[in-house]
Amino acid sequence: MPVGTLASVKGVPQDILEELGVQILLGNTYHLYLRPGVEQIRRLAGLHCFMSWPRAILTDSGGFQVFSLNDLRRITEDGVTFRSHLDGSEHFFSPESATAAQIGLGADIIMAFDECTEYPAEPERARASMELTLRWAERSKKYFEEHKHEVPWTTTHVEADALVRLGERSSPAPSDSAELNSPGRARAPVPTRAGETQALFGIVQGGMDPALRKESAERTIALDFPGYAIGGLSVGEPRTLTREIVEATLEHLPKDKPRYLMGVGTPEEIIEYAKLGIDMMDCVLPTRAARHGLLFTSQGKISIKQARYAGDENPLDPNCNCRVCRRYSRAYLRHLYASNEVLAQVLNTVHNLSFYLDTMRGVRHSIGLG
Amino acid sequence: MPVGTLASVKGVPQDILEELGVQILLGNTYHLYLRPGVEQIRRLAGLHCFMSWPRAILTDSGGFQVFSLNDLRRITEDGVTFRSHLDGSEHFFSPESATAAQIGLGADIIMAFDECTEYPAEPERARASMELTLRWAERSKKYFEEHKHEVPWTTTHVEADALVRLGERSSPAPSDSAELNSPGRARAPVPTRAGETQALFGIVQGGMDPALRKESAERTIALDFPGYAIGGLSVGEPRTLTREIVEATLEHLPKDKPRYLMGVGTPEEIIEYAKLGIDMMDCVLPTRAARHGLLFTSQGKISIKQARYAGDENPLDPNCNCRVCRRYSRAYLRHLYASNEVLAQVLNTVHNLSFYLDTMRGVRHSIGLG
Repeated sequence: MPVGTLASVKGVPQDILEELGVQILLGNTYHLYLRPGVEQIRRLAGLHCFMSWPRAILTDSGGFQVFSLNDLRRITEDGVTFRSHLDGSEHFFSPESATAAQIGLGADIIMAFDECTEYPAEPERARASMELTLRWAERSKKYFEEHKHEVPWTTTHVEADALVRLGERSSPAPSDSAELNSPGRARAPVPTRAGETQALFGIVQGGMDPALRKESAERTIALDFPGYAIGGLSVGEPRTLTREIVEATLEHLPKDKPRYLMGVGTPEEIIEYAKLGIDMMDCVLPTRAARHGLLFTSQGKISIKQARYAGDENPLDPNCNCRVCRRYSRAYLRHLYASNEVLAQVLNTVHNLSFYLDTMRGVRHSIGLG
Repeated sequence: MPVGTLASVKGVPQDILEELGVQILLGNTYHLYLRPGVEQIRRLAGLHCFMSWPRAILTDSGGFQVFSLNDLRRITEDGVTFRSHLDGSEHFFSPESATAAQIGLGADIIMAFDECTEYPAEPERARASMELTLRWAERSKKYFEEHKHEVPWTTTHVEADALVRLGERSSPAPSDSAELNSPGRARAPVPTRAGETQALFGIVQGGMDPALRKESAERTIALDFPGYAIGGLSVGEPRTLTREIVEATLEHLPKDKPRYLMGVGTPEEIIEYAKLGIDMMDCVLPTRAARHGLLFTSQGKISIKQARYAGDENPLDPNCNCRVCRRYSRAYLRHLYASNEVLAQVLNTVHNLSFYLDTMRGVRHSIGLG
């Protein structure tokens, strides 16, 4: 899942994301709650309509971002008080309010409010944190069950063909793009989904202790969610430990429900985690690295800022068929980056996303072949 | 002509420019000379190949930008010594070296090196400046005639179908786009043009004096260029004076050669100048205004940063069929701008260019109807 923090994958128009084959985007509740605000997005019929994105969206609970604020937050049983990174104003997220925010945003998949245990953590601290996450998961689910029909989908100003489009949802993704760009259409169609609700996923915590992870998984499953995430990883621990904990957690998660590993990873890592049984991942790496001129290719990483590419007429990745590699040379991309041109960010991001999505298409193909 | 200073219309990929119907782009010699350098672009077979733009390009002579440096430049009969705005390094442009740079860049249309007379200027200063521009025009042309075959087109690494494409040049512009995006193509095709050369345009100066303008026009025409530009306007004078001088100059320029008014204008102005007989214009206004959230619409200018648009579900311009107006709401564009998202610049620029190009399409249509 590419990350579209503020309802935009930085620098990339939605029709190009569709062309790339993006099936689902991640939005950050903390950021959207601050700007433009949940009520604004609710009034505009939810994130899909707001950002004109008819495909799937997942929002995180805001927990991870709030915990990342460090000095700016205070945690109690009830929830987390934090200060905005924008203006220092004080806010409060609880399992109830974070779930309410996510219902208002109206993503397809939303996440229970959890505490992301820091690394390293003492055993008693890891247990206490896990127990808190379990109590918060229960409260998140309770609030969700009582309020899930408040999702703004039902108030969507749908177009005449929206219902038709809903039936087309299983058709190959790239066809949307041409249709959206046909003249005379006022706005991108977003399916109406009267009667449907969002899917609330639970999050497994437990620090770096396999036994705690097992307990967290079993007790989260007992709460009965339609999907489960593995949280609290990629927080500074060594990669071998990440993998160990992923394996130790996965064996306790049901195979017939989506298993989502949060916040990973490199192209090599996402292949490895998929092999272990992970179904969903999100990471800022492809988009953030692109903004720093770090590009993923079939021949390894390229730092496009390097002078060695100044006269290089080759495409960025000769094995890539994305619109950047089809059209531009490394020399041009290097020039754009060195000259601080905005197009550098646009093109670099398109390529890195293409590389990641190609990687996952390859994974799905391999799974299909057994 | 949209402005693509550093071989990029800031934030907009080339295929979107093609889709918008851009027929010709302007590149700035001064900027490209500094970054990535003329020799670099020459080695990469010229601007068209470098930036993967198969349609027309015009480069300015660098004169206007160098004169804008004010404290950083010194003018003599021979040329202009100036300091780079990037690192303060000293450089020298003469009619010969500026023409050489433009031959190396390889645009379709290049400009004689002129002195842009400041406003206001005393009569003797305006005359002296005009005389200098005439001597420089002669030197520019002499250098061009002796070196025009050094244009890097002939060394272009053309693809097999480039010659075919050359024959297609008169076909409607938007068809290029789909073709460029067809899978399997390594790079955008750029036509080979063995034996062809660039077109060097002369520039009329003469300050704000109609008699000097007449003299400048007649003596520039005597040098015999394939097209003529009106320079030295939009330098701070009132708009009524600009119009007056344009009219006074136009009547002395041949109707059967392109007449290019440099550095204008607003959508209303470009219609007015076209009506007077101007064939070509360039301006940073649509792209620069877009970056500041100032958008041109059929209902007037919109400052998208204003809070009044935060909940506005309407398209930016209900009468515009561009890919931005077809897909996104004012509320979303306002959010992107307020959140400092790069996509704001991309989408705003696409819309403003679309508005300008639609304006000129309307002008051409009206001319066609008589």
